[in-house]
Amino acid sequence: MALINENYLKLKAGYLFPEINRRVKAFAAAHPEAQIIRMGIGDVTEPLPPAVVDAMHRGVDDLAKRETFHGYGPEQGYDFLREPIAKNDFQSRGCDIAADEVFISDGSKCDVGNILDIFGPGNRIAITDPVYPVYVDTNVMQGNTGVATQKGEYEGPLYLCATAENNFTPDLPKERVDIIYLCYPNNPTGTVATRETLTKWVEYARKNNSIIFFDAAYEAYISDPNIPHSIYEIAGARECAIEFRSFSKLAGFTGVRCGFTVVPKSLNGFTKPAASAVGKPVPLYNLWMRRHTTKFNGASYITQVGAAAVYTDAGKAQVRKLIDFYKENARLIREGLTKAGLKVYGAENAPYAWIKTPDNATSWDYFDTLLTKVNVVCTPGSGFGTAGEGYIRLSAFNSRANVEEAIKRISKL
Amino acid sequence: MALINENYLKLKAGYLFPEINRRVKAFAAAHPEAQIIRMGIGDVTEPLPPAVVDAMHRGVDDLAKRETFHGYGPEQGYDFLREPIAKNDFQSRGCDIAADEVFISDGSKCDVGNILDIFGPGNRIAITDPVYPVYVDTNVMQGNTGVATQKGEYEGPLYLCATAENNFTPDLPKERVDIIYLCYPNNPTGTVATRETLTKWVEYARKNNSIIFFDAAYEAYISDPNIPHSIYEIAGARECAIEFRSFSKLAGFTGVRCGFTVVPKSLNGFTKPAASAVGKPVPLYNLWMRRHTTKFNGASYITQVGAAAVYTDAGKAQVRKLIDFYKENARLIREGLTKAGLKVYGAENAPYAWIKTPDNATSWDYFDTLLTKVNVVCTPGSGFGTAGEGYIRLSAFNSRANVEEAIKRISKL
Repeated sequence: MALINENYLKLKAGYLFPEINRRVKAFAAAHPEAQIIRMGIGDVTEPLPPAVVDAMHRGVDDLAKRETFHGYGPEQGYDFLREPIAKNDFQSRGCDIAADEVFISDGSKCDVGNILDIFGPGNRIAITDPVYPVYVDTNVMQGNTGVATQKGEYEGPLYLCATAENNFTPDLPKERVDIIYLCYPNNPTGTVATRETLTKWVEYARKNNSIIFFDAAYEAYISDPNIPHSIYEIAGARECAIEFRSFSKLAGFTGVRCGFTVVPKSLNGFTKPAASAVGKPVPLYNLWMRRHTTKFNGASYITQVGAAAVYTDAGKAQVRKLIDFYKENARLIREGLTKAGLKVYGAENAPYAWIKTPDNATSWDYFDTLLTKVNVVCTPGSGFGTAGEGYIRLSAFNSRANVEEAIKRISKL
Repeated sequence: MALINENYLKLKAGYLFPEINRRVKAFAAAHPEAQIIRMGIGDVTEPLPPAVVDAMHRGVDDLAKRETFHGYGPEQGYDFLREPIAKNDFQSRGCDIAADEVFISDGSKCDVGNILDIFGPGNRIAITDPVYPVYVDTNVMQGNTGVATQKGEYEGPLYLCATAENNFTPDLPKERVDIIYLCYPNNPTGTVATRETLTKWVEYARKNNSIIFFDAAYEAYISDPNIPHSIYEIAGARECAIEFRSFSKLAGFTGVRCGFTVVPKSLNGFTKPAASAVGKPVPLYNLWMRRHTTKFNGASYITQVGAAAVYTDAGKAQVRKLIDFYKENARLIREGLTKAGLKVYGAENAPYAWIKTPDNATSWDYFDTLLTKVNVVCTPGSGFGTAGEGYIRLSAFNSRANVEEAIKRISKL
């Protein structure tokens, strides 16, 4: 009798975005005339940079001719992509990261989920709240949690609340945790971590032999020169952190699928200590290499050729323009809705505005209000965790016209 | 202290193909003049079919314009690909498989590894031997095995030996197993399973509430009209089998990355039975849906547009031509090396020839002989399992000139 992974049965029904889709679909069916503006899911709307488009056409043509055909590539990614990443994203910022510590993948969501494969049972997990739901759900699947409580949390992980009261910057845990998820610039709150905050985390992790999973998917949206783009800008992070990056929000790759994960060779996990002994250190690099080469077969050649174009001069300029476009959307949202009397957080060094619901409405109530009264789709904050209750997220990924229209409509409420 | 998944420490050093690469690299460095022909790794060599190339160019262009831009797609894949798959690969062969039972991915290697996520501990695994190493290694990682024995197997799984003595068709297990890996046409032996053989497996699985993982990556190479292409051609398979498919060897997608997995809605796993009670059935479809939407973000839009072109009239004709080309290579290998006095199996309904080493040489010894004496790279059979000792695999994925030259060289030995 084939036994299932019963941890899946602990998962609460419905991932956030399918539920949003369901409500929007039902509303649209009942009101076919409504001009719905979707500011919910954080999906890009602008076309790929021309340098990427040209490169991908060349990549397709390479596969059309025997002489330039590429079959299986290295599972870890082509050097033509790993090298510019190491140079531009890390070494140029003073981070000591080598090209062979960069693992190219088909997207950060996969990596963030799959990374747990190389970790054992018995780790205490710390997750900020509100948070990208994938962090939580993958831990449930892995058996790192108990069942869901009535509050909507799961038994087991330590939830680090990020609310207006603590300036969306949770304190360090008082207790020992083994794996810590940090996402900066933050999804969903749009807040950033200062060098001081990250330094405290690195010190904590090194003291406790904990590992930080640092999700930097939105680093390109940082304009404040004092905010680190990578955890490896902090001394000691090579000994305690894995960093996840994505081309999705950098260069419009949500439909193209490319990301990468940095696992420094100096980073250790531990075997389970016997009573009164310490565990043996094991390089996580070797374990991730094994996972990556055994359960993955490399990202598409065409995709990687496209991603490499992001690091050309033309690509850099075009990507900058794309990011600036979305950042201007974010500024309009922040300023427009603040002017309309809403309390707006984030949206300065991030593509997300995190907005307090008026009149202490619940997140889903305000979601329904925005959907039904002004036909704007947001993401209810409570979908990101219990500490997100009473907030909504608006995404800056949209056309200028839609952003302006959405601000106008919400302001009228 | 972050604890690692200690199952990884049980893995024997070196995945097969990296070890082959290492030996070939060392030989090439010492003999830069050698004209090495690589018939080892099963990687395609011919360019993509023109219909696929054209479609992917269109896919790239779609992403270059705001009006036709595609961001995140459905994680399960676009209907424009799932529907022709269901129709052409299954319904046209009388298999009752619906489009929404097809999950598009970035490749079968990922799916074959990831599928274990939804299964619990405590399952007894049956694996044919010799076998695609990924089946074994992913079970080691998952904790479904003990340590490696001196013989080179792992404690735990039931190994079903496939050798010339049983016509490469293992008997049904005498004992109960919960998960069974079957790959037909087989990698590495190139043998196929008859309708009668598959019917026996389906009956066994249904009787024991076992699940068959059916890897049909090479189904396009079947020319015998009596051999099933899909496990779902067997009555009852919807209740006991998951099928894995790939565009890699079908349409040259090894560098493009696309595969799919079929999980019928009528397929159940079970919760762990309490003492003297039976486990509760749980649809595996729901679990895989949850895994796929939580840990994966869809295959590249461009890739899916290209894959869909495989099902157009032009695409079908071009793919047929491509397969026929490799099949002719296989025929030349089979007939050429048989004529040279070698005992050659497979290579009729499969792109692989499975060859008994002469003079009872070990697989690696004969590998070294072929590499150093005639500069031909094969895959040592023992790399696929202990029952592969004394065999090598030659792949038909190569140019005609290389195949003819390799046959000539090996025949001289």
